[in-house]
Amino acid sequence: MADVFVWLLLLVPVSALSSYFTGAHSVLTFAAATIAIVPLAEWIRRATEHLALRAGPAIGGLLNVSFGNTAELILALFVLAAGKADVVKAQLTGAIIGNALLGLGLSIVVGSIGREKQTFNRAHAGQLASLLVLSTIGLTLPALFDYSLRGDTPSDRLIRDEHLSLAVSVVLILVYVANLLYTLITHRDVFAYAEDDVHDHEAHPVWPVWKAMAVLATATVVTAFEAEMVSGALESTASQLGLSEFFLGIILLAVIGNAAEYVSAMYFARQNQMGLAVSITVGSTIQISLLVAPVLVIASALIGHPMNLVFTSPLELVAIGTVVFAVSSIAQDGETTWFEGVLLLAIYVLFGLAFYFV
Amino acid sequence: MADVFVWLLLLVPVSALSSYFTGAHSVLTFAAATIAIVPLAEWIRRATEHLALRAGPAIGGLLNVSFGNTAELILALFVLAAGKADVVKAQLTGAIIGNALLGLGLSIVVGSIGREKQTFNRAHAGQLASLLVLSTIGLTLPALFDYSLRGDTPSDRLIRDEHLSLAVSVVLILVYVANLLYTLITHRDVFAYAEDDVHDHEAHPVWPVWKAMAVLATATVVTAFEAEMVSGALESTASQLGLSEFFLGIILLAVIGNAAEYVSAMYFARQNQMGLAVSITVGSTIQISLLVAPVLVIASALIGHPMNLVFTSPLELVAIGTVVFAVSSIAQDGETTWFEGVLLLAIYVLFGLAFYFV
Amino acid sequence: MADVFVWLLLLVPVSALSSYFTGAHSVLTFAAATIAIVPLAEWIRRATEHLALRAGPAIGGLLNVSFGNTAELILALFVLAAGKADVVKAQLTGAIIGNALLGLGLSIVVGSIGREKQTFNRAHAGQLASLLVLSTIGLTLPALFDYSLRGDTPSDRLIRDEHLSLAVSVVLILVYVANLLYTLITHRDVFAYAEDDVHDHEAHPVWPVWKAMAVLATATVVTAFEAEMVSGALESTASQLGLSEFFLGIILLAVIGNAAEYVSAMYFARQNQMGLAVSITVGSTIQISLLVAPVLVIASALIGHPMNLVFTSPLELVAIGTVVFAVSSIAQDGETTWFEGVLLLAIYVLFGLAFYFV
Repeated sequence: MADVFVWLLLLVPVSALSSYFTGAHSVLTFAAATIAIVPLAEWIRRATEHLALRAGPAIGGLLNVSFGNTAELILALFVLAAGKADVVKAQLTGAIIGNALLGLGLSIVVGSIGREKQTFNRAHAGQLASLLVLSTIGLTLPALFDYSLRGDTPSDRLIRDEHLSLAVSVVLILVYVANLLYTLITHRDVFAYAEDDVHDHEAHPVWPVWKAMAVLATATVVTAFEAEMVSGALESTASQLGLSEFFLGIILLAVIGNAAEYVSAMYFARQNQMGLAVSITVGSTIQISLLVAPVLVIASALIGHPMNLVFTSPLELVAIGTVVFAVSSIAQDGETTWFEGVLLLAIYVLFGLAFYFV
Repeated sequence: MADVFVWLLLLVPVSALSSYFTGAHSVLTFAAATIAIVPLAEWIRRATEHLALRAGPAIGGLLNVSFGNTAELILALFVLAAGKADVVKAQLTGAIIGNALLGLGLSIVVGSIGREKQTFNRAHAGQLASLLVLSTIGLTLPALFDYSLRGDTPSDRLIRDEHLSLAVSVVLILVYVANLLYTLITHRDVFAYAEDDVHDHEAHPVWPVWKAMAVLATATVVTAFEAEMVSGALESTASQLGLSEFFLGIILLAVIGNAAEYVSAMYFARQNQMGLAVSITVGSTIQISLLVAPVLVIASALIGHPMNLVFTSPLELVAIGTVVFAVSSIAQDGETTWFEGVLLLAIYVLFGLAFYFV
Repeated sequence: MADVFVWLLLLVPVSALSSYFTGAHSVLTFAAATIAIVPLAEWIRRATEHLALRAGPAIGGLLNVSFGNTAELILALFVLAAGKADVVKAQLTGAIIGNALLGLGLSIVVGSIGREKQTFNRAHAGQLASLLVLSTIGLTLPALFDYSLRGDTPSDRLIRDEHLSLAVSVVLILVYVANLLYTLITHRDVFAYAEDDVHDHEAHPVWPVWKAMAVLATATVVTAFEAEMVSGALESTASQLGLSEFFLGIILLAVIGNAAEYVSAMYFARQNQMGLAVSITVGSTIQISLLVAPVLVIASALIGHPMNLVFTSPLELVAIGTVVFAVSSIAQDGETTWFEGVLLLAIYVLFGLAFYFV
């Protein structure tokens, strides 16, 4: 797997050259910068993992989960700073449906080739599904609240949406902290097997701390450069391709930060470790609700471009609700077959169609 | 069971005589023609089954599922040709809630008489429930999409609804084909038991091919005649009875095509084969979403009376969503008791009340 | 446990004195009268239980479930008689989310202290979850129906909402009667264990019938007095505290009638009888839908202050739907850990925030 993510780094100079020769707003610059984020996210993840191995399980787990969404957060912050809060919200929705439908669907299909069915631990999957349900309820509450109150004046409403979104974000982050306590301290043994399995398959020696730190810092800085290019070229690219910025956000930007994780999930599914593939994709989905979205709401208020959690289109809520329902219903029986994977992918395609028509 | 469906064929001449003597638009003609479709649907099903037994399992399975909804489709096409797309959509909704609430509810109640509880294979029921969830999401997407976009001009919206409905229909039919591959080829053994059980109970010799073909052709043609009478008398009957065409579609036309299946499901429930009763009723519900509805959308575009998938009343969506939730929650524990049957019937009555007031 | 509920009765004279000295509309009168209902509800419950023990299991069970919501019903009737149907509906919603999020959440957290996890009978919890799903669908149908029909004139709509609410109430009460037959007669053994466990832990001798009747009558009459004070002081208290009557209804009045039950549920959770704690809290939630709400609709029509089941804010529907989803997802795996309790409490806090902003 390593090779691909080394070669893909070539897109970093490509994007810089494209920006110089074809202009900062060209489709080529946008494409190169966007895809360049995929290997950068993977290198951030690897550096974090090596640091985590040096730091012992509790701190290590904390590092892993905290830096797991770095690339995604950086990209969202640059888009936010460009004043495009709606695109960031689309990116959040897209990450949720991308992880749970595209990522999990691909893993199930890839894993099921040549196998009648794959099984996983129902109890663990059930717990992930509960957490997904409950975290999603929190995330979507401000939007549900907003839609329920149609009669107000727009300005009152904006202020109220803002306050409620901030309050909800604080509660969600507290839930996230409780979840860390739960998975890293009080119930560590329940969740430990996943980590072990991951490491068993990596024969590489552990990096020294300085190397991990250097890779982490460099990859983060370069990601920021690429993210700035992406956000700068977003508008012109959308108009040149005849697509909406919303569509680019929900379909393209959304999966960039998580693409490397999809590859891992597919890899483990191929190894017949379906439980891990489910943990990775559903776990990522939960992190969007409990960490990425609330951090963005709070950060957006601090940088003066406030973003609330009221999704632009009710269809986004429908998509999120659907994901929860679909994942719960897949997780419930502890088995996956290729047809379930096809169903998840079909729903993703249907939402893609719907978002295209919006 | 056979006798009833022979005697009910007498309704065919009754409907013809009624049309001649009391007029094509009388309530009696409507009633006779509607009920006459019940035995015709059963004879189409039997002829198909005998053909299927001659054709071997894979082709046979394909025949069975393809012709299982013939009567329903013919009826819907005639109503559609009369320009009543809303009634056809009501018929689809009604078939979904009828199969899963009325059909399954009656089976559970009938099956539970004299038994404390009945059990069935949870894994299989869970898989049906997953498929029901995911297929329903596809079916309802265009309506959810339409409701999410209130601001557009009506004409833009109609075109967009039409395009999205066609695109969704193509995806749903592809999912249906994948499902056929899954149940008839890659996972045949998992689903085979149901077929065997059905045939064990039928002691009749297999019909020769010419007889099966003749019955199939005749019953199909006669069904078309009856369907034409039904669609012709619909409007006048509704006004004479003081009901809406919508109500007749969602409550009456909806169950006609499936009534014979309810009888089978109740028969198997009585034999304590609850798994089969669940498969028949839930399987039928899934076929509405994955086959009947998409075929009607595409056929309607071809015959020049385009029908989209945007259900007329949001209450239809609520009803469909409810069915999914109720069936999932019943299927989950692998057990049924009379009270669960009563609950399903009570919800059906509640929806009937609500649709009456619409 | 007994002591607390004896001492709390002191709030009865306190509320009377407060009404005399600080006025019938003061915040102190409101607070004392409201909290005084907590011990009164507990004494009504105890008297009923002793009567039930004298009456044998079937009649006893009937007594227990019929009088279990007396305090809640009396309070609601007085608020209704004061013409505040919206507050009563808020109280119903609040009781549903209070029982299932606050009551169950607290029980799970309290029970999990010092334990890795607690388990309960999945089949039984699954059945409760099914019943919760299906009863909630019935309860919310008139509101869903009303929201689906925006175009009508307000007066037509009110009449239709009223008729549909009455019809739905009758069906719900029939379902409730069927449920009594089910739990007390046909499937008594399945549900019997819960009762036994409850009584094992109470070492007190059974009261004579006259004592139980006297306590029941006195507590009911006193509850009515307190309820009248609460409903009289509601408006002024809300304005003095800067809160809406809706917020007081949904957060405060809603939990008063059930607070004693929360204490029981926490007590059993502490004894590691999580199944009982789930039965109590979820069972109470189901009773709101199947008994309390329909009885109030019918009683309201009789006393000339008709209340329909169309909840005031769509957010109430969202909250109810959420509860169903959250409880189903918790019940599904037959295990609880402290983190699930925290999640339920967090959702309750989020709804509290949202209702505060309404």
